[in-house]
Amino acid sequence: MICFHNDYSEGCHESILRRLQQTNLEQTPGYGEDAYCAMAAEKIRTLCKQPDLAVHFLVGGTQTNLTVIDAALRPHQGVISAASGHIHVHETGAVEATGHKVLAVPSNDGKITARQVEQVVLEQRHSGAAEHMVQPKMVYISHPTELGTLYSLAELEAVSATCKQYGLSLFLDGARLGYGLESEGADVTLADLARLCDVFYIGGTKVGALFGEAVVISNPAINEDFRYLIKQHGGMLAKGRLLGLQFDALFTDDLYFKLGRHAIVLAEQIRNTLSQLHIPLLVDNPTNQIFPIMSDAALAELGKSFTFTEQERVDETHRAVRLCTSWATTQENVDKLCEDICRIYKNLEN
Amino acid sequence: MICFHNDYSEGCHESILRRLQQTNLEQTPGYGEDAYCAMAAEKIRTLCKQPDLAVHFLVGGTQTNLTVIDAALRPHQGVISAASGHIHVHETGAVEATGHKVLAVPSNDGKITARQVEQVVLEQRHSGAAEHMVQPKMVYISHPTELGTLYSLAELEAVSATCKQYGLSLFLDGARLGYGLESEGADVTLADLARLCDVFYIGGTKVGALFGEAVVISNPAINEDFRYLIKQHGGMLAKGRLLGLQFDALFTDDLYFKLGRHAIVLAEQIRNTLSQLHIPLLVDNPTNQIFPIMSDAALAELGKSFTFTEQERVDETHRAVRLCTSWATTQENVDKLCEDICRIYKNLEN
Amino acid sequence: MICFHNDYSEGCHESILRRLQQTNLEQTPGYGEDAYCAMAAEKIRTLCKQPDLAVHFLVGGTQTNLTVIDAALRPHQGVISAASGHIHVHETGAVEATGHKVLAVPSNDGKITARQVEQVVLEQRHSGAAEHMVQPKMVYISHPTELGTLYSLAELEAVSATCKQYGLSLFLDGARLGYGLESEGADVTLADLARLCDVFYIGGTKVGALFGEAVVISNPAINEDFRYLIKQHGGMLAKGRLLGLQFDALFTDDLYFKLGRHAIVLAEQIRNTLSQLHIPLLVDNPTNQIFPIMSDAALAELGKSFTFTEQERVDETHRAVRLCTSWATTQENVDKLCEDICRIYKNLEN
Amino acid sequence: MICFHNDYSEGCHESILRRLQQTNLEQTPGYGEDAYCAMAAEKIRTLCKQPDLAVHFLVGGTQTNLTVIDAALRPHQGVISAASGHIHVHETGAVEATGHKVLAVPSNDGKITARQVEQVVLEQRHSGAAEHMVQPKMVYISHPTELGTLYSLAELEAVSATCKQYGLSLFLDGARLGYGLESEGADVTLADLARLCDVFYIGGTKVGALFGEAVVISNPAINEDFRYLIKQHGGMLAKGRLLGLQFDALFTDDLYFKLGRHAIVLAEQIRNTLSQLHIPLLVDNPTNQIFPIMSDAALAELGKSFTFTEQERVDETHRAVRLCTSWATTQENVDKLCEDICRIYKNLEN
Repeated sequence: MICFHNDYSEGCHESILRRLQQTNLEQTPGYGEDAYCAMAAEKIRTLCKQPDLAVHFLVGGTQTNLTVIDAALRPHQGVISAASGHIHVHETGAVEATGHKVLAVPSNDGKITARQVEQVVLEQRHSGAAEHMVQPKMVYISHPTELGTLYSLAELEAVSATCKQYGLSLFLDGARLGYGLESEGADVTLADLARLCDVFYIGGTKVGALFGEAVVISNPAINEDFRYLIKQHGGMLAKGRLLGLQFDALFTDDLYFKLGRHAIVLAEQIRNTLSQLHIPLLVDNPTNQIFPIMSDAALAELGKSFTFTEQERVDETHRAVRLCTSWATTQENVDKLCEDICRIYKNLEN
Repeated sequence: MICFHNDYSEGCHESILRRLQQTNLEQTPGYGEDAYCAMAAEKIRTLCKQPDLAVHFLVGGTQTNLTVIDAALRPHQGVISAASGHIHVHETGAVEATGHKVLAVPSNDGKITARQVEQVVLEQRHSGAAEHMVQPKMVYISHPTELGTLYSLAELEAVSATCKQYGLSLFLDGARLGYGLESEGADVTLADLARLCDVFYIGGTKVGALFGEAVVISNPAINEDFRYLIKQHGGMLAKGRLLGLQFDALFTDDLYFKLGRHAIVLAEQIRNTLSQLHIPLLVDNPTNQIFPIMSDAALAELGKSFTFTEQERVDETHRAVRLCTSWATTQENVDKLCEDICRIYKNLEN
Repeated sequence: MICFHNDYSEGCHESILRRLQQTNLEQTPGYGEDAYCAMAAEKIRTLCKQPDLAVHFLVGGTQTNLTVIDAALRPHQGVISAASGHIHVHETGAVEATGHKVLAVPSNDGKITARQVEQVVLEQRHSGAAEHMVQPKMVYISHPTELGTLYSLAELEAVSATCKQYGLSLFLDGARLGYGLESEGADVTLADLARLCDVFYIGGTKVGALFGEAVVISNPAINEDFRYLIKQHGGMLAKGRLLGLQFDALFTDDLYFKLGRHAIVLAEQIRNTLSQLHIPLLVDNPTNQIFPIMSDAALAELGKSFTFTEQERVDETHRAVRLCTSWATTQENVDKLCEDICRIYKNLEN
Repeated sequence: MICFHNDYSEGCHESILRRLQQTNLEQTPGYGEDAYCAMAAEKIRTLCKQPDLAVHFLVGGTQTNLTVIDAALRPHQGVISAASGHIHVHETGAVEATGHKVLAVPSNDGKITARQVEQVVLEQRHSGAAEHMVQPKMVYISHPTELGTLYSLAELEAVSATCKQYGLSLFLDGARLGYGLESEGADVTLADLARLCDVFYIGGTKVGALFGEAVVISNPAINEDFRYLIKQHGGMLAKGRLLGLQFDALFTDDLYFKLGRHAIVLAEQIRNTLSQLHIPLLVDNPTNQIFPIMSDAALAELGKSFTFTEQERVDETHRAVRLCTSWATTQENVDKLCEDICRIYKNLEN
């Protein structure tokens, strides 16, 4: 069985394994205060073109989301998110477990707009019972979103400006950031993120690392005592250098971007195949997640050799599924997938 | 200015004040372990026709909601509520502050259906990532709802059956229960509630008491160590007898029901006036909250003598507002209100 | 049975009942935004000699403690308390339920010293693992303490200065403040508290009110959005005027101080009787709680007519108990108590 | 500089790195549902001699502690721990952040006794205000403790029996378990732990793994929905196989025990050297942490070549420090350390 159901089925890029091997018996300080973390942080600051950014390395995405949000909010404050946002749907209430409400707004494409943010803020402020409502204080967006879509620079600037106008902080979940940065037409850079967000994270787990997310904080208020919160929420790795090493490797020789690009090129090939077969997509996006709508019969056939994720039922006989490429996806497997889809559709036509 | 903007502007029924006076210098045990609380609980058990019910008295609604829900759920479990539910909108994230997610479902009339409950449950269980989602474990409904509507006995039985089928508990917020029980066409009794809900509360604050809500628990698992949770969440009144006394008074000589009936009769009078003037309602309901849609001009005029609550803008020139009657509303004031509305509409026509 | 086991067995001072009666059918805004709350707050500000103080009224002590502490701390911060402090022992983990650790320090007399505060702070800061420890950020003291002792002005100034030096806030729990202010030798005034604490509360429940505590905040950072936290934690009374009315009554014609004084005079009488009989005290204090150490035989006899609270076993045949006087204690009952103790001791001698 | 200041300065045992390399590009299911986790769990069940144990793999110790404790307790319940326990001192209030109080009991050697557990339970139950106190419901012990001491089998059986008697669950933190199992005189086995504890964990981070702790649960009530809690608290590793692989390697060919034994042998050599020089120990223990009390002068000299952890000041001129050996400590470095200590003491004598 060949896996296309997610982008974290394999281990890590070989250069990371090599680094682990080379440094294995070095003795380093614990908890992220080693030289490798410092080097990786410095590389990220350089790419972000801001020398003062705080950079912290955490193990996983849910942990990162709950720690950042808890660090940024007082008890009565909540975080605005698309209803499809990972924190709202797929983190077992991790944010609520820290005491904060996720203020969900509807979204068809996984994104939220500056206008929606403003509406939530004004609705609370003008409600006549503001104190009886959760105070919106942070906006959470994912980029790419859970539906693989991307914010344009203009959209991101608008959301950021609205946040500033109303005193909210902006947090961008970049679990798949490498794929977002390298997609066709993407016009948002790391430097843009550092400039427009109060805090964002660069995902490693899904983009070539064994595990790990790099949190980048430009707002000093959120960074205050941030390490206490990492520790309290169980996110401070004893051998923190494991995280530093990985991000240092990922940001050496543009590896992170190359890995991202690799997945995008293969995703484009799949999208082209689907397009030629007139297979519709649930949502159009340029990143490494593809959401074709196929007949149950075709999916049954495809499922004999490939894994994919169920997304949603579209009608009586069709459903949308998710196919992912990743840094580790091979050309060979993508060729097989495309051939198989073509074969299945040809047979079905007959 | 005559207040119709809520049902808690005045103090309490005179019989309660009299009881407070008569018993003021008695020495009683604290924290709800006095004879008055015992008497009131016994009266409630009799009305509910279940001798084994646990009855606790708390000070207010938000406190009651957060304590009950926290007592019923483990950390990863959430409570299903209408998106318009008080716990979702107007309690400053009190439930989330205890670590639990409110799983909101859309509703036009403030109610949720058995089918909606089932959908939320099945969506989580069949998601393929159940452990990554909050586990629905309780259903919260308000009766009357925030929009003044009522569950029919059949609807309530359906919700209750679905909860039992899927192992969820059912919690009914009866902040305005007295008005619900005495509305025209209402077919749900206290005994029905005790039979169909795992836990519900009988609102005192809005129905004749100075303050206080009586929590009635039929599910022993929710009642286990419940008093610890009351104390932990700051809801255990030192002079607990104040609550017992009030509910004992309210359930003496059917006072609670008479107070409810009083408000309903006056609300009907207002509804009739509105109907005669062809003033539409945002939502049709038989209880003490009335939601007329009136022009901004008419409301400006009405607002010179009467208070009401803003509900929502309906179009460019019209908005829905809320008028409440209560146990304390006088016939005289309702007559004035009706006359004023008639006068305003007559003038506007000319 | 005559109750000396606590200071909240009766209702309230008659002037409060009278005010409730007089104003019962007035229509006032809810949630503490009425004229009575404003009047009471103004009286408190005047007594505290600070025109800018924020004053909020909550229903009970545990609720007040958890709300104030949660408002003041970020997630990784804790509150220093005597190991005997109410928040550490007798609030069912209410502070921890908001996510914060109580950092307990040993105390024989219920008080903590400036030196102890400094030690906790320095121990954490100099530990070499500061981020792995809870950051002390607030000091909680009770005055009178749970053992009836009082801080001298000099002690309070020292604690306050140490807090300021290290950036901690100082919170004083005044559940029995009225008795503390009126004790023999007490040299701390309301104005001192307002000057030296970031936040404190004036207890009503135990000093003449039906219920209610007045929170006085001089530190604007703690007051920011404080009403949201009251609401979130279930402490916002719908008919908030009930609290305003009571405190307005208590601070009219020095009633609060007179009620405090009343209890102190009667407590002194009991202490004198005990002293004449050479009955030792567990802890010497000048307030309304008295902790005599008596033989099991004597207590068995005394328990036939009077209630008291068990404090602790002292040796095989003796235990310390607590006797409380209050605003409601009658001269007649104190006389009876003293006579009974004398009689019991005379009999035991023979 | 040669590090003896902790047991997590290096990476991992070479066999683990080799396994990572060999399996790197395999595609496996995420979140711990892969074959490697299953294999490792099976090996642990076999060693524990209980075929029904639940085994979960988490990334680190704090995360494990907070997740287990949160899974086991209802909101009003707390966990008893030695005052020196890791959860009480060095996890930034992680347990309190989940809402639960740590009930600390004094301890000189890091251990708590069955009698102490009983006392805490009875004190609460017989307090006359049980509902106002946190209900003790779990006991947390570390083995080895933070002071390197071990429970004897008899002591552990006594604690376990007391827990069972009073309905508490027993949780053993085995962050350094490998060293405890292999110490001289240790009479507790994995099978004993599985039999006597409701839940315990086998530490990997400090005993040969890159990271990871294996939670072993024998009490089904604690295991119920445990994976939801792992996810909610951010402890569910996407590439869960990384944990399974490591524990599978550690429990292949007794590697875990051999690594433990290695550190113990070297620790014994250091202890012997200290003993010959009559250097006293702060606490006597048989495990891999050694707490010599040395003069400031000697430590200044030693600190030129070796790192150690400050433990506490003993008198004006002496302090206790901590030296750790580990699976990665080399014979060569221990020889150097012992020689250096001998040299320093010889010089100081002259």
